Amino acid sequence: MKKSSLLFLFLLLWTVGNAQQALWGGSQIVSPEINPDNTVTFRLFAPNAKKVQVTGDFLPMQKKQVPGLGEVEEPGVADLTKDDNGVWSFTTPSPLSPELYGYSFLVDGLKMMDPSNVYMIRDVATVTNVFLIDGEGSRAHYYKVNDVPHGSVSRVWYDSPGLGKKRRMTIYTPPGYEDSKDSYPVFYLLHGAGGDEEAWIALGRTAQILDNLIAEGKAEPMIVVMTNGNAVQSAAPGESAEGFTVPKMDVSRMNRGEFEASFPDVVNYVDTHYRTKADKHHRAIAGLSMGGFHSLHISKQYPDLFDYIGLFSAAIFPPQGAQSSVYEDMTGKLRNQFEMKPELYWIAIGDKDFLYEDNVKFRKLLDKNGFPYVYYESPDGHIWKNWRIYLTEFVPMLFK
Amino acid sequence: MKKSSLLFLFLLLWTVGNAQQALWGGSQIVSPEINPDNTVTFRLFAPNAKKVQVTGDFLPMQKKQVPGLGEVEEPGVADLTKDDNGVWSFTTPSPLSPELYGYSFLVDGLKMMDPSNVYMIRDVATVTNVFLIDGEGSRAHYYKVNDVPHGSVSRVWYDSPGLGKKRRMTIYTPPGYEDSKDSYPVFYLLHGAGGDEEAWIALGRTAQILDNLIAEGKAEPMIVVMTNGNAVQSAAPGESAEGFTVPKMDVSRMNRGEFEASFPDVVNYVDTHYRTKADKHHRAIAGLSMGGFHSLHISKQYPDLFDYIGLFSAAIFPPQGAQSSVYEDMTGKLRNQFEMKPELYWIAIGDKDFLYEDNVKFRKLLDKNGFPYVYYESPDGHIWKNWRIYLTEFVPMLFK
Repeated sequence: MKKSSLLFLFLLLWTVGNAQQALWGGSQIVSPEINPDNTVTFRLFAPNAKKVQVTGDFLPMQKKQVPGLGEVEEPGVADLTKDDNGVWSFTTPSPLSPELYGYSFLVDGLKMMDPSNVYMIRDVATVTNVFLIDGEGSRAHYYKVNDVPHGSVSRVWYDSPGLGKKRRMTIYTPPGYEDSKDSYPVFYLLHGAGGDEEAWIALGRTAQILDNLIAEGKAEPMIVVMTNGNAVQSAAPGESAEGFTVPKMDVSRMNRGEFEASFPDVVNYVDTHYRTKADKHHRAIAGLSMGGFHSLHISKQYPDLFDYIGLFSAAIFPPQGAQSSVYEDMTGKLRNQFEMKPELYWIAIGDKDFLYEDNVKFRKLLDKNGFPYVYYESPDGHIWKNWRIYLTEFVPMLFK
Repeated sequence: MKKSSLLFLFLLLWTVGNAQQALWGGSQIVSPEINPDNTVTFRLFAPNAKKVQVTGDFLPMQKKQVPGLGEVEEPGVADLTKDDNGVWSFTTPSPLSPELYGYSFLVDGLKMMDPSNVYMIRDVATVTNVFLIDGEGSRAHYYKVNDVPHGSVSRVWYDSPGLGKKRRMTIYTPPGYEDSKDSYPVFYLLHGAGGDEEAWIALGRTAQILDNLIAEGKAEPMIVVMTNGNAVQSAAPGESAEGFTVPKMDVSRMNRGEFEASFPDVVNYVDTHYRTKADKHHRAIAGLSMGGFHSLHISKQYPDLFDYIGLFSAAIFPPQGAQSSVYEDMTGKLRNQFEMKPELYWIAIGDKDFLYEDNVKFRKLLDKNGFPYVYYESPDGHIWKNWRIYLTEFVPMLFK
């Protein structure tokens, strides 16, 4: 009997593998530790290191010169100090606002993940650890999994005749979808350059934001469809037959309008495989950065598809060399679209965004032609923090 | 026009963030590099490091003494050597067999992820990088995403009255499920101690194995349901209202038979929300380690539910102090179960598994009572390599 018990413990240890020290050892390193006053302490056991630093978007931005591009801002860096046991630590000098933050350590100049934190998110070819500062009543409370009914999140493969392949996408169905016979409106949500069908669900916290807004009665129950906007890919890195290859972007293939032109393939799949309200009044499209560019050009190319359009920090004008009928006669197509009176044309951007001037130019074009839109300006630049804000602002306006 | 093009490039750079060096810089570090002869080269740029090592399951196991437990095996360690540019590298002395491997770097004794490899998998509280050696005709070819039709993978929340909460699970539906009106058999697949509803889909490569076996006609199209076997949890770490907490196990609550007793809640949800063939002939249950223990005790507790039972490196006997009617009268319940003639009772274990002797004892019990089973023995111990093998062996035998 004693032996059987020991074996069971052993079984646990074994399955846990290398984690045994963290899980079963005496003094476990806790990092990051969110203190009661919302300051945060980072810790790393590195007795042999000469210098340990932490970098992340919770620190003030620093300016840096990039050859050919000029001044670029990047997250700041803070030094950790070592105690007698070889544990390095740093506590933020002031409390952090509620938000989802990313960070990494720098050990003698080498970037590394925090071994005490299993939570990390990939953004294109970079992985960072994440932590969340909660705050009842704060916007970040919507980014958290709360005790509310949860929707389902599925990865499905749809057929795109327009792109000549099966492609992967991520679909959120709202709580109750499986138990009802109702039809639902659909919100198409597009990622930025270098992202993929995992971007909005991971960094955008789409499932949590929708669950929480719906639970509070602030948003209509809706289906959210997150596509892969890279026409050359069939799926996110690691999820296609290309295998575990290094994530990369083929910029040369990003300006042919292929994804935009083929977008009805996505809508067709969703309308034939989900219980949707399959009309313009019950369809929205929005995207960040390149996804905003896609939303702009898709919605004017197919003006009878979407009644709600959201441009989040959007690229506006096609890049030099772009060749596609999708991009021709921009003003004429916008006129077509606005003659069909979309319910909402929503433009959001940060006041430090490098695309700010392009958005000013676009709003002037809309103003000049009398095309109505709603404008939302936030602080900061071209960052996920803003895109989560825009999502929580945009979704409650849909399908009302 | 030129400015617009520059802005577009900048937009890409910006979105890519910290990855710019890897994506846009001159000499990119490739790691791991799978060479044409299937040797593998690991590389790390660490000019200030004194010692860089790599550890992983591609290296021969080493023996180690653990106080109170005796001799334990753990993956070996190999030294990298530094070149004049500060790039450390190590190439395996011989080709690696096709397999999914995990590894980490040790830099001056500090364990870290490979910054050149975004592919990592969490196993309980440990994250390691992964890579896959493919081989046409090899078993590992089933672990890869190939150009075959893909099923869908969904995370859904089901109601468990037996455990008094909504709980998360992962469900694979086979290619064609969405486009047909057919009903499908269901395979319930359970994780080990410390795992959760993400374990089989991530480390077990369940979606890839099923896609590939179905594409070759070796397996029937089936639904695969991957539950969370920790009665105390509602979802995997990071996916519940507990937030981004350190993954841990509450061993004291693992031996009350609660998960086993409540398992009909899962079956009810699946049968009422999916197009299933809702009878014993079209249900299978299997699990690894603790999940094998669960499969054994669930299937004899509810002998009219499952016609196919798989024990993968299973724990057999309840631990000391286990208190549940589920565990009472083991032989009597097994007699009930075998009187109902299950189609397949399959027991698989590695010849170095620490649970080997318990499985010998269990087979003697079955033999003594004339309860028929099929036995499969593989080399090695209590490791994921074996569980992927067992899955590829077990699935083709189901529902034929």
